[in-house]
Amino acid sequence: MIRVPYEEVLDVLCRVLLKLEFTVERARLCAQLFADTSRDGVYSHGLDRFPRFVRAIRKGLVDIHATPQLMSSHGSLERWNGNRGSGNLNAWQSMARAIALSHRHGIGCVALANTNHWMRGGTYGWQAAEAGVIGICWTNTMPNLPPWGASTPKVGNNPLIIAVPRPKGHVVLDMAMSQFSYGALASYRLRGENLPLDGGFDSQGRLTRDPGAIEVSGRPLPIGYWKGSGFGRLAFGRACYPPDSC
Amino acid sequence: MIRVPYEEVLDVLCRVLLKLEFTVERARLCAQLFADTSRDGVYSHGLDRFPRFVRAIRKGLVDIHATPQLMSSHGSLERWNGNRGSGNLNAWQSMARAIALSHRHGIGCVALANTNHWMRGGTYGWQAAEAGVIGICWTNTMPNLPPWGASTPKVGNNPLIIAVPRPKGHVVLDMAMSQFSYGALASYRLRGENLPLDGGFDSQGRLTRDPGAIEVSGRPLPIGYWKGSGFGRLAFGRACYPPDSC
Repeated sequence: MIRVPYEEVLDVLCRVLLKLEFTVERARLCAQLFADTSRDGVYSHGLDRFPRFVRAIRKGLVDIHATPQLMSSHGSLERWNGNRGSGNLNAWQSMARAIALSHRHGIGCVALANTNHWMRGGTYGWQAAEAGVIGICWTNTMPNLPPWGASTPKVGNNPLIIAVPRPKGHVVLDMAMSQFSYGALASYRLRGENLPLDGGFDSQGRLTRDPGAIEVSGRPLPIGYWKGSGFGRLAFGRACYPPDSC
Repeated sequence: MIRVPYEEVLDVLCRVLLKLEFTVERARLCAQLFADTSRDGVYSHGLDRFPRFVRAIRKGLVDIHATPQLMSSHGSLERWNGNRGSGNLNAWQSMARAIALSHRHGIGCVALANTNHWMRGGTYGWQAAEAGVIGICWTNTMPNLPPWGASTPKVGNNPLIIAVPRPKGHVVLDMAMSQFSYGALASYRLRGENLPLDGGFDSQGRLTRDPGAIEVSGRPLPIGYWKGSGFGRLAFGRACYPPDSC
């Protein structure tokens, strides 16, 4: 394992983003969100996704200058159009807006459409907790989880984030509705490790701890079997626009 | 199996409640909430709990005349004191209030303290969906679930309810954070059936499908192991006042 100082990571990412013509302020925040995720040990949604993010920008799938735009307002609830902007910056701005709404109305909720992958969902839970408010976030995803009892992916393994601020350390949950997210499966596979528990079915329909076999079959287990299947049902859909920008 | 017409059940429950000096309107609603739950097949939180509810009233633990009282208001968010009233009537009124708040503010949230067991949590999800709004409800409970990796109950197997209205039939999730709620364990045991999957540990720490062994050990499995354990962490505490009224 090679250890790289956080500041150095931040600096490299920032320079790449500046070269792509991000403004200084947006480059700094975007780089920080990627760097923080890896610093916090969430290797599946941090630096590893940065090259893909850069490719999506170069292909024109992510519009780095776009910012969210208010579409409609219902008191504490607002709908925004992400205008295909950078997923993490869009999500960050949306949570900031939800926090502001909560100060005015008691609760605030922002729904964001037409955006790109927000990377680590927990980032926005931490953002809420740091601001002293409870944060609940979720997103839809691709149909990448078979409902309990089925073999083809029809629901999503979307994440659910619940963050509760506490003086002695926030409680932040950030979890996929599959027992192991695809990011987690890849991390185990890259480390050459088996899962600690059955994580899904292989292509022959047998329960397995082999992460690669589940990546191939596309049949991870939902948490709590029928229960996570229900959670996934609620979030079926596509979060990424265009889909190959994820 | 004996089949009893719904109207007959409703009538019997209602007459018991009237005898206990509920007002007509409150007796009807309270009886309906018990009867609907059994009619919907949730045998663990319907008629089976009615005798215990009546005992709690007779002991003075539930004050049948009490109604919730507004303690503080923050726009879309309100805190209410349940005044130890009937748990299901208190919860019903709270959801009705949350729905009214959502019409005014976009979202409404009611926090209810000092109440009694709300019986089937899903009741209030259906209530929201029938009113055409999304409903999310949860409650705390007793420390009755060991965190993942531990053997003593320190977190709660509290329910989480998410209801989404749809013209073609609402989607309503109503689930404990343990793989099988204590109500579900009792239902399996009473039917003389094993669980379809490992549901917890026995007193020797072995994974088991024997519902009775898990009731004895007090070690049900959280859904998704560490994930449900995290959900339970958020809801640690006691919902029932006094505790033996649950």
